[in-house]
Amino acid sequence: MAPILLNCMGNDHNDYIKQLVQVKNPNLDTMEEDILYHFSLGTKTHNLPEMFGDIKFACVGGSANRMKGFAQFIHKELELPGNSEEIINICEGTDRYCMYKVGPVLSISHGMGVPSISIMLHELIKLLHHAQCRDVVLLRLGTSGGVGLAPGTVVVTDKAVDYSFRAQFEQVILDKVITRSTELDEGVANELLQCSSELQNFPTVIGNTMCTHDFYEGQGRLDGALCSFSQEDKLEYLRKAYDAGVRNIEMESTVFAAMCRICGLKAAVVCVALLNRFDGDQITSTQDVLVEFQQRPQVLVSHFIKKRLGLIV
Amino acid sequence: MAPILLNCMGNDHNDYIKQLVQVKNPNLDTMEEDILYHFSLGTKTHNLPEMFGDIKFACVGGSANRMKGFAQFIHKELELPGNSEEIINICEGTDRYCMYKVGPVLSISHGMGVPSISIMLHELIKLLHHAQCRDVVLLRLGTSGGVGLAPGTVVVTDKAVDYSFRAQFEQVILDKVITRSTELDEGVANELLQCSSELQNFPTVIGNTMCTHDFYEGQGRLDGALCSFSQEDKLEYLRKAYDAGVRNIEMESTVFAAMCRICGLKAAVVCVALLNRFDGDQITSTQDVLVEFQQRPQVLVSHFIKKRLGLIV
Repeated sequence: MAPILLNCMGNDHNDYIKQLVQVKNPNLDTMEEDILYHFSLGTKTHNLPEMFGDIKFACVGGSANRMKGFAQFIHKELELPGNSEEIINICEGTDRYCMYKVGPVLSISHGMGVPSISIMLHELIKLLHHAQCRDVVLLRLGTSGGVGLAPGTVVVTDKAVDYSFRAQFEQVILDKVITRSTELDEGVANELLQCSSELQNFPTVIGNTMCTHDFYEGQGRLDGALCSFSQEDKLEYLRKAYDAGVRNIEMESTVFAAMCRICGLKAAVVCVALLNRFDGDQITSTQDVLVEFQQRPQVLVSHFIKKRLGLIV
Repeated sequence: MAPILLNCMGNDHNDYIKQLVQVKNPNLDTMEEDILYHFSLGTKTHNLPEMFGDIKFACVGGSANRMKGFAQFIHKELELPGNSEEIINICEGTDRYCMYKVGPVLSISHGMGVPSISIMLHELIKLLHHAQCRDVVLLRLGTSGGVGLAPGTVVVTDKAVDYSFRAQFEQVILDKVITRSTELDEGVANELLQCSSELQNFPTVIGNTMCTHDFYEGQGRLDGALCSFSQEDKLEYLRKAYDAGVRNIEMESTVFAAMCRICGLKAAVVCVALLNRFDGDQITSTQDVLVEFQQRPQVLVSHFIKKRLGLIV
């Protein structure tokens, strides 16, 4: 009977393995210790399965303050016991990133730009793997410049595209450049759009998100320390972007999409547009307005999480 | 006599203008207001010449805590009045960067990676320009992986090079990719090396610094969430880098060098090597050792500043 038993176990085991967060690095299994340096965590110093094994949603965003705010917000939304103001930064041993755990939700900051989020993602995916997490959804909550959208509009990313509107990310590996696909999970994006329709006065679109490597010259801003192009050049570029389906511009989505895809993680990008780039470059809204705008991705993602957890139907 | 007088005034004026920090953007002069969004500062809301007009050294580094520590350290080193513990973060309206002013020294954090430091540099160069600063030296104080160096060695960058060891930086402007030179100021680098020889037990070299866009695959680490190459591939790449004069690897130097060069700013990069990449990938030194290593660029730059200010001969 042994083969049959093994087979049954094998099927169950295969399903279990399939749902686990996967890394794509055979070396990790042979390492005695894995130090997640930029989180100030490690496999020998911390019991990662105990600390993180129940995580189902990993929410990431640029600003440390904002991700602390999101942790406090989702704590209240999930009606968890304890004081949301007393939430502890798990990465307090470093100032590279901050991390908060609220029930099945992780809230982590990633700084600005592809390299900064890329370091965080390597260590987050390893953390979820070491912790034996299963069925985790990754969500990036960000701010962005809108392309032909009213300020305050939320954009759920269809495809993350580069400066020439291609859905790909160029990764340097040793001395070679390879390209990786940046397609995100269509199902999660549609779920988020459905969630937005259930909220009051919540302007939301699905569109392509252009990811650039700087905020000024790469996004066609006329107000950087360096600028060698005209207002007409800028507007022509933004029009081309709009025609290619781009609805917002930020600085992290391509590598986020590419790494999640390779590791088989379902992922989405939800950014609010702080301004319409056809109208200007500088962010001139009042602090109060900006704070309200920045809460919108949090409100939408919270609604999504509550629905997934069956707290609302 | 008017023409002669004008001519004299013109020469003086030309010298004065030459020493001013220059932007390369004609639009800035015509803008009514310039909001330095990621510093939470602006030309209408702040008197930048009064706040920053006497700055002679702008020191930048990745970690906010470390740059606060440097501000407190240089405050003591320059024997300035007041309590160094009570130093105020000028950018407290945002958590993107932190900024401290200590006499003629600015200490600013820039996060990790080229995009993050690039945003900071655009706004720093505009700040120095609006404040009518003159003769400013920019210094990056960082941490890095060493290539064939003992941990703790300080590297003063000769040339900042890309993943294929070229002294250039690729910048996307709208939909075009251009390359910019990344040569740094030889005079300042040699001054820093001279300073290191005046300090006790202060292992320092001048060498090329390779700037990558991620910490794992781009630097040949075998311990990321993704790894598709062997230990042999990694070592071969590091050997090629060493043969090309690379002595350390970090993630900001090329854009730092390129932007400073375009704006005519004298600049240097001073990084400590936390490990020798030929020996491993993980940073396993104790916290105490790492803290002491991270102070070394601060000690060297402080010595340089004190010599420049005539406080030591």
